[in-house]
Amino acid sequence: MHSFNYHIPTEIVFGKDTELQTGKLIRKYGGSRVLIVYGGGRVVRSGLLDRVCKVLEEEGLAYEKLGGVHPNPYLHFAIEGVKKSIEFGADFILAVGGGSAIDTAKYIAHGTANPDIDITRFWTRELKVTKTMPVGVILTISAAGSEMSDSAVLTNVETGVKRGLSTVYNRPTFSILNPELTYTLPRYQIACGVVDIMMHTLDRYFCPAPHNHLSDEMAEALLRTTIYNGPIALENSKDYDAMSELMWCGSISHNGLTGLGNKTDFAPHQLGHELSARFDVAHGASLSAIWPAWARHVYKSDVSRFARYAANVWGIRGSNEEAAAIAGIHATEEFFESLGMPINFTTLGVGLQGEADLRDMAYCCSYKSTRTIGAFQVLTEEDMYQIYKAANC
Amino acid sequence: MHSFNYHIPTEIVFGKDTELQTGKLIRKYGGSRVLIVYGGGRVVRSGLLDRVCKVLEEEGLAYEKLGGVHPNPYLHFAIEGVKKSIEFGADFILAVGGGSAIDTAKYIAHGTANPDIDITRFWTRELKVTKTMPVGVILTISAAGSEMSDSAVLTNVETGVKRGLSTVYNRPTFSILNPELTYTLPRYQIACGVVDIMMHTLDRYFCPAPHNHLSDEMAEALLRTTIYNGPIALENSKDYDAMSELMWCGSISHNGLTGLGNKTDFAPHQLGHELSARFDVAHGASLSAIWPAWARHVYKSDVSRFARYAANVWGIRGSNEEAAAIAGIHATEEFFESLGMPINFTTLGVGLQGEADLRDMAYCCSYKSTRTIGAFQVLTEEDMYQIYKAANC
Repeated sequence: MHSFNYHIPTEIVFGKDTELQTGKLIRKYGGSRVLIVYGGGRVVRSGLLDRVCKVLEEEGLAYEKLGGVHPNPYLHFAIEGVKKSIEFGADFILAVGGGSAIDTAKYIAHGTANPDIDITRFWTRELKVTKTMPVGVILTISAAGSEMSDSAVLTNVETGVKRGLSTVYNRPTFSILNPELTYTLPRYQIACGVVDIMMHTLDRYFCPAPHNHLSDEMAEALLRTTIYNGPIALENSKDYDAMSELMWCGSISHNGLTGLGNKTDFAPHQLGHELSARFDVAHGASLSAIWPAWARHVYKSDVSRFARYAANVWGIRGSNEEAAAIAGIHATEEFFESLGMPINFTTLGVGLQGEADLRDMAYCCSYKSTRTIGAFQVLTEEDMYQIYKAANC
Repeated sequence: MHSFNYHIPTEIVFGKDTELQTGKLIRKYGGSRVLIVYGGGRVVRSGLLDRVCKVLEEEGLAYEKLGGVHPNPYLHFAIEGVKKSIEFGADFILAVGGGSAIDTAKYIAHGTANPDIDITRFWTRELKVTKTMPVGVILTISAAGSEMSDSAVLTNVETGVKRGLSTVYNRPTFSILNPELTYTLPRYQIACGVVDIMMHTLDRYFCPAPHNHLSDEMAEALLRTTIYNGPIALENSKDYDAMSELMWCGSISHNGLTGLGNKTDFAPHQLGHELSARFDVAHGASLSAIWPAWARHVYKSDVSRFARYAANVWGIRGSNEEAAAIAGIHATEEFFESLGMPINFTTLGVGLQGEADLRDMAYCCSYKSTRTIGAFQVLTEEDMYQIYKAANC
């Protein structure tokens, strides 16, 4: 087991009607002037935003609204958000929504706490975040895990680059998890969420040895739970237990717990970021479209690991490890398909790419030939190209 | 899934030589005058205490030492500790040891932060803790889970009553987990720890329906990990991986994670507290001595739950649920025995108790006939008596 630090100060308030506690929680953490960050659509239509505003008013909190966060959220929008936040004099940022709203809120918090710094410099990692402002979350989508994670991902639309930033300052102060707020999710978004939750776990699970007993077992537990409850949720998005399990799995999947004591891989996430930045497809869809090609490209690096995955997650056992490993990859692919999720570029709906495009994607994903990605198997630009090519069907 | 709050601000620093970070961590959390609380023996003999003092000196921190914490630690000792802490002007309490040192440190922190209040009033639950002082931990025993838990248990030697206190103010500020610090543990203490870790999990796992998918799966994962690594650790206490797994399992077993979304039972702990307070036996030993009798007394409340436990933790499957349930209890008992742990009063070494003693134990455990215990099956004073009687062999 490698050494690790584990520190998640985020207070989780889980259950029905918990959004009614928002005002008191903001007060508890010292907020008085609140910038509410959200996308639009469901948060507004469902009446949630009005309900939240009312709760803040009852607590005597001043607030300003900032709607319009885009999926695969934009760096320039967050920069505008920082301006608005500073003008308003916000001392607390409240995200209402999913990963996009939360990630945007995190960057706005960093920018507000560092008014002299352009947050682009955090995004490029030229500067490290050394202070921030408290961020609260009311979660409405079980997927990104940003409500408990130390990461935030924004896209620079000018350059088409999507980048994640990991820092302890990205952990929200509190997150309100009411599964009922996910009842109105469209079927496709639930499916995207299931994939995202699985991928946060798989991108930690497929890691170089030494393996970790408890972390590995918890990752498998989370995968089985998600695979069991995902289809129930798709069938009936008002199944409280299934939606609860997905919501809690989402938070645990990306708070770090299932990867402690090991390196993490996250190559599929990096490969997927290039897809979602380029084609503006849903994050979860970009992941399911690339994972099978990634898995088949790398599984020989540790066949036993893939065979264990097949056995403990999919119940596929056999004396031939390689056959089991391949069957496990196939089972994952079939599961993604059963959710209505893409498993290659055609089903992702981006059409077949030409040779030059595939090369360019690998070039961009390798940050212009300046980085490798992954840890289970370190991937060069050529590997990235081969994986994109394999998925291009 | 029931609603829940989950909030563990404790920073975990896990790995070799991590105790060298103690000084910097205390500074990070605002400490400058440190009261070091420990038992004695191993912490002193191993040179750990001297090493820690040196690290604090290098960081320019003032400190005072308070050794002599007893296993099954005493309330009166903590009261003396509060006096010493206030005299010294401590602003940070550092526990070096296991559950006994940590629990004592937690109470000393409460008392120092509330100098006008006798901590006995927190212990009796007459008053609630509303503020405390930061507590840091250097863990030397994988067992109690106090390094991440919200509980602290002290014994009032005057009345012979052992009581736990759960409050958010009991969560340590940081905990340093270096598995190498457990290398010198005697075999019996490692075994006691394995039982304690399992029991923190079992006392959450055996709970009234509705069951929770992820929490249940994670509990089973933790149990399997502990059962696998416990015997390896007993065989070779310098096996870094096995000692690491036990250490992390210990923290996760009692930080709340495996019981989220459900009521917890903790009846075996309550029954065991009476044993350890009365006979001054190790906490883990009191638990393994009482669990088989408890399990056989209650399993009919939910045979399926015990059958699931048998299947998922012990690999015992069969068409007859009741037979599987009983076999799972038996497997647990045999595992405790294989660790050299007691499974009844005789093997606990307290001798057979007379009828009047058994009745008196039930009377005390029921707080003089004023409370029931447990949730999987609510136990009356008569139930407690029956369980003590069944274990009295």
